[in-house]
Amino acid sequence: MRTPIRIGIVGYGNLGRGVERALTLNPDMRLIGVFTRRDPASVATLSPSTAVHPIDALDAQTDDIDVLILCGGSKSDLPEQTPALASVFSVVDSFDTHARIPAHFAAVDAAARAAGTSAIISTGWDPGLFSLQRLYDEAILAQGQTYTFWGRGLSQGHSDAVRRVPGVAAGVQYTIPSEDAIARVRAGEDPELSTREKHTRECFVVLEDGADADAVRETIVTMPDYFEPYDTTVHFISADDLARDHAGVPHGGFVIRSGTTSDSTAQSMEFRLALESNPEFTASVLVAYARAAARLAHAGDHGAKTPFDIAPGLLSPKSPEQLRAELL
Amino acid sequence: MRTPIRIGIVGYGNLGRGVERALTLNPDMRLIGVFTRRDPASVATLSPSTAVHPIDALDAQTDDIDVLILCGGSKSDLPEQTPALASVFSVVDSFDTHARIPAHFAAVDAAARAAGTSAIISTGWDPGLFSLQRLYDEAILAQGQTYTFWGRGLSQGHSDAVRRVPGVAAGVQYTIPSEDAIARVRAGEDPELSTREKHTRECFVVLEDGADADAVRETIVTMPDYFEPYDTTVHFISADDLARDHAGVPHGGFVIRSGTTSDSTAQSMEFRLALESNPEFTASVLVAYARAAARLAHAGDHGAKTPFDIAPGLLSPKSPEQLRAELL
Repeated sequence: MRTPIRIGIVGYGNLGRGVERALTLNPDMRLIGVFTRRDPASVATLSPSTAVHPIDALDAQTDDIDVLILCGGSKSDLPEQTPALASVFSVVDSFDTHARIPAHFAAVDAAARAAGTSAIISTGWDPGLFSLQRLYDEAILAQGQTYTFWGRGLSQGHSDAVRRVPGVAAGVQYTIPSEDAIARVRAGEDPELSTREKHTRECFVVLEDGADADAVRETIVTMPDYFEPYDTTVHFISADDLARDHAGVPHGGFVIRSGTTSDSTAQSMEFRLALESNPEFTASVLVAYARAAARLAHAGDHGAKTPFDIAPGLLSPKSPEQLRAELL
Repeated sequence: MRTPIRIGIVGYGNLGRGVERALTLNPDMRLIGVFTRRDPASVATLSPSTAVHPIDALDAQTDDIDVLILCGGSKSDLPEQTPALASVFSVVDSFDTHARIPAHFAAVDAAARAAGTSAIISTGWDPGLFSLQRLYDEAILAQGQTYTFWGRGLSQGHSDAVRRVPGVAAGVQYTIPSEDAIARVRAGEDPELSTREKHTRECFVVLEDGADADAVRETIVTMPDYFEPYDTTVHFISADDLARDHAGVPHGGFVIRSGTTSDSTAQSMEFRLALESNPEFTASVLVAYARAAARLAHAGDHGAKTPFDIAPGLLSPKSPEQLRAELL
């Protein structure tokens, strides 16, 4: 495809902004516009030349867009938007509610097959790149155990939980993988690791005036599911410190498999991400899979797909000949 | 495919032995036999039940074998064997002479297309898994630099070079990645690294009776291409020490990409292998790609492929539904 792949962005939060930025690094793609449920006049894009349209305007753009990159949330946006939009456009999303992936896949697959579009769901890094790694690991080292560790990284869900605690004015939460647990896995011990042994949690909290620090700490560390199963540390800091030191959205983690190929022969595979911006990285993955979606659509390969179904070469702007000569 | 995938092994050195062993860990596959240019009576397989045939016997087995796993060397075996056998069977190989991959691909592709077989070349880990990582890295982080480090590992080619030095009775060579260079890459410095800065080389040498150690050391460390561009250390040890401490075939390495998604936002991806047995691990990769080759052949997707062309899901014995539910 010599002509640029024409992209629409649906939803414009941190992820949509990341996609707008990532597209500037990929000259084989062109951004047609941002489509939003908000008042377009209220949306300030990174580039002043980016067009912003109400989401209903998509109906009139079916001939102008090759792939829509869906940047809504997995909780309520994507379960509706991905199947609905796959009925008209080829799409990619980063749906990340693990337990609901089979249902989401089925809904998107039905819509995309009926419409003759190509839809790639659950791109991103977990699900996404980490899932790929788990698959390669297990397919190659049939005998072994795979471990996933997350962090050090900002967890949006846990930060929200902290901010809902009475007496908390603002705060963030970091998930931290246990160095000790990682060392044991790398050493091939195949440990059974409890939730508490794999990760710790660290909170930075700004108190409301007059709030009781001890009571806030106690409410946080005993919160079921969110913090109780972990060793949690709570730091109280000023609003200025929070703004200065905790404005970023770092994340990352490890997928490690240790296995054996004969009695005493240990083999280990490890994949690591260290991200200063989780949304900008996730956006970069979405953009690479949008390239694959455009190629699938072009080839008439319709229906829902996940990263497991996508030949790696489809993600690259390079030709197969170039890839074999330069990267193999 | 409910019935097992029927596999033939061509060539029975360390790699062929590794494939025989790996197949025992993959119950969806069945070994039909080993095919060798040697006298079959002289080949001692790991399992006494493994059939060993002269390579010419393949002609009579075209209906009994789904995929041949080619375990010969890249220098003289595979350039002839892979195209010749792809004219009759679906095949996988681990052809690893980077510069000759385009020519090898073209020869195998012509043979496989004419015969209606599926051939996957250059599986293994480099080329192979490391190549895949370089591709994912570059497609996702469009702006950045990718580094490959090898080791700590036994290099067969460099060990052979050491053993050819006059006065050397036996010896091995390890390639060692520079910890300092890796640290600079991980820190996102994007360093320009010379050959000497990336890896060092360490040799363990048993001298012949009466050989001059200083002369041997000098010949090794000044050897053009092999050792001159590196900082090389030579240790002289006894034949007993060599047998006790250096009988294994460890290898591994890192592929690291550090990139940015906006002005000051660093992102890094890292893939690492730590292998106690290079041939057993390479064999495990070959077996996973043999599964993919059988599925391609079954689906009528003929011609030559590389790991870049293989959707990850084809490597796994699990169904797409299982993969989405369990690993995504």
